[in-house]
Amino acid sequence: MKKIGILGTGIVGKTIANRLLQLGYEVKMGSRTSNNEKALNWLSTAGPNAQIGTFEEVSIQSDIIFNCTKGEAAEEAIRLTGIENLKSKILIDLSNPLDFSKGMPPTLIPQYANSWSMGEAIQQLCPDTFVIKTLNMVNCEVMVNASLPGENGSMFICGNDSESKKTVSKLLQEFGWNDIIDLGDISASRGMEMLLPIWLRLWKATGTGHLAFKIVR
Amino acid sequence: MKKIGILGTGIVGKTIANRLLQLGYEVKMGSRTSNNEKALNWLSTAGPNAQIGTFEEVSIQSDIIFNCTKGEAAEEAIRLTGIENLKSKILIDLSNPLDFSKGMPPTLIPQYANSWSMGEAIQQLCPDTFVIKTLNMVNCEVMVNASLPGENGSMFICGNDSESKKTVSKLLQEFGWNDIIDLGDISASRGMEMLLPIWLRLWKATGTGHLAFKIVR
Repeated sequence: MKKIGILGTGIVGKTIANRLLQLGYEVKMGSRTSNNEKALNWLSTAGPNAQIGTFEEVSIQSDIIFNCTKGEAAEEAIRLTGIENLKSKILIDLSNPLDFSKGMPPTLIPQYANSWSMGEAIQQLCPDTFVIKTLNMVNCEVMVNASLPGENGSMFICGNDSESKKTVSKLLQEFGWNDIIDLGDISASRGMEMLLPIWLRLWKATGTGHLAFKIVR
Repeated sequence: MKKIGILGTGIVGKTIANRLLQLGYEVKMGSRTSNNEKALNWLSTAGPNAQIGTFEEVSIQSDIIFNCTKGEAAEEAIRLTGIENLKSKILIDLSNPLDFSKGMPPTLIPQYANSWSMGEAIQQLCPDTFVIKTLNMVNCEVMVNASLPGENGSMFICGNDSESKKTVSKLLQEFGWNDIIDLGDISASRGMEMLLPIWLRLWKATGTGHLAFKIVR
């Protein structure tokens, strides 16, 4: 059974971690310190297959790592894993480079938008890691339960390594995604992250975050 | 019966024009000159309800105008209509600010991306016009025939004037769109135009341009 690491202790990290435990995986949640309060709280009810640790410990002890940090903090968190510890591992990036500094609704952080992306920045930061972008364009409850919107949407995935995309697709299927569209190399992160502005508008317009993009064709 | 103007003589303009003629509208296609070859070719087979003219003539003689020019040319085309001629009229903007200057796949033209958009730029250019952004995120054949992908997708619309959005929604329904989502004011153009990078990837990944985004919720 693969050991899965989670970078980040927020709602996205906890939701992914809990679902993975439910599916039978061993899950280690990481943060900057080994005694992070949110991680300890999670651990207290998470059962025997759960562990916590620093970003570095998580990256050493996991086969697959989910980056569930906020976009603005993602690069720093990944540096703290020790880049070398991520070598030849799969890093699934769920982050979105949202810029709340100019108020609501947020834009994308300019240096990651349009001709660059968070997914590409992370791949550049750890060139020997198989960075896979996926799930970033749905609410975390939908991430782990694709049927929550009533009808399944499509899920997009991109990355430079085909085998890693297959491995991650199997995990996505365990989350209920049955229409997974491979958009190509990691530069497709641009388009995936550029879905956030319309996602935020759709949330407001429809009154629910339990929505997804289904590609009809 | 409302008279509808089309700015642009390319494939998008012709497809919209032909569908509107089919639906019984009077359609006037506009370009920079009154003897544009593509417009004349279209006119030769378009039937008695079709006319051609300059951008200015089209804007004077139409109640509703579709901007079907390319993003890079849109502001100049609208200036040539004579901004005053568009006053209190509905201008439906289908354009996308694509930047092909750095090769394929295109990015968005930086000055229209993320914290600004073509829709907003056009609204700023003609502040007394009801600018409505819609249809820009599907191929032109799908624009006028929502059922072409086999299953109908959702259609997004935004603009500052509610009555104009209702009028345009009726036209969209005539094109077959039955799930029209109002994303709010014209600044929602940002998210709608930011769909283009993923649209281009989806086109490549699925092998068909006859696709649409359906919002499941």
